[in-house]
Amino acid sequence: MATARIPEATVARLPVYLRSLTELAADGQATTSSDILAERAGVNAAKVRKDLSYLGTHGTRGVGYDVRHLVFEVSRALGVANTWPVIVCGLGNLGRALANHTGFTERGFPVVAAIDVDAELVGTTIDGVAVHSPDKLAEVVAAEGVAIGVIATPAAAAQETADLLVAAGIRSILDFSPTVVSVPPDVEVRAVDLSTELQILGFHLQRDLPPEVNL
Amino acid sequence: MATARIPEATVARLPVYLRSLTELAADGQATTSSDILAERAGVNAAKVRKDLSYLGTHGTRGVGYDVRHLVFEVSRALGVANTWPVIVCGLGNLGRALANHTGFTERGFPVVAAIDVDAELVGTTIDGVAVHSPDKLAEVVAAEGVAIGVIATPAAAAQETADLLVAAGIRSILDFSPTVVSVPPDVEVRAVDLSTELQILGFHLQRDLPPEVNL
Repeated sequence: MATARIPEATVARLPVYLRSLTELAADGQATTSSDILAERAGVNAAKVRKDLSYLGTHGTRGVGYDVRHLVFEVSRALGVANTWPVIVCGLGNLGRALANHTGFTERGFPVVAAIDVDAELVGTTIDGVAVHSPDKLAEVVAAEGVAIGVIATPAAAAQETADLLVAAGIRSILDFSPTVVSVPPDVEVRAVDLSTELQILGFHLQRDLPPEVNL
Repeated sequence: MATARIPEATVARLPVYLRSLTELAADGQATTSSDILAERAGVNAAKVRKDLSYLGTHGTRGVGYDVRHLVFEVSRALGVANTWPVIVCGLGNLGRALANHTGFTERGFPVVAAIDVDAELVGTTIDGVAVHSPDKLAEVVAAEGVAIGVIATPAAAAQETADLLVAAGIRSILDFSPTVVSVPPDVEVRAVDLSTELQILGFHLQRDLPPEVNL
């Protein structure tokens, strides 16, 4: 399996390339260059060429990369051709925003169900997503073929939710809670920190301040 | 200004280091190693040592890095000692989730105001955040000293919102909308794609499928 040998840092950049390529395709661009992709991804062009070479894709000198072909190759590497049903755990504002985020379905991650502890929500449908009680999680995961669990609960409920997901057979978890959950070694957890990008903006804002408040 | 010379890729990793260091401090760890930080940040230990050397920080052989000192140094480099008031534009589910995300305030990004086109919301306070009409944006930005604008509107309203923010004097924008906004060259926009991490999970899920469906 060629995909097994793609370095993690490259894997992390593939969604960024795919987003740029999709935009270029939408703009009617037939070809692109490693320079253009590099600028959008915030790396240098040599890194882009190296990353894409792992997919067996090489640009043509003087022409660049074929955008549609590259969309296909990066999508294939990312498994976008596959569909990974998602369950959202916790239907506060963030959970609801995630449950009706159209970008997930478009990229092969349809939200097929949700769980919440609120008895008034259980049994209802929110934005087309059926809401279940946490004690039905294993049943729902099996019935809907859920592949990924998204934790959008308050921090205090995150570990318990992770434990429920693991007990239900989930091996891939996306954690939006502002905490760190413990899981067995065969379970992959990726944490999303919504303030990371704000901190990068803050770094640049600080750079524009008078020198005495800088490093 | 030493900060001006820190490479962008390093800047992007500083929030990840800061999060790991904060967790280590909370766990009572007095020292840590580049290996531990590398594992958490998904890079190699040499990269961590290089990144931290830009801050003028070097570990002690056989001891590692002092966690509390490193929290201080990374925070200082990121300008966490400064406070950058934030305005949230668009109070749908995502906007509300962002407006009451406690992690923002803790990291120096208090949400001081919001705007929304919904006349029923304007004039109210949601989770302690006053909601204003978009035509009051410049006034609010000046009165509250807003440094960063967060776009949490539907895609169709994102460009108009970006134009309003720029006209109000905002030079740093965080864009959660599933689109790309155009701004003048002196304005920095960082886009957050909520499905990036799902795609990385999808990559790993795919790797576990039988070989015939892989690359």
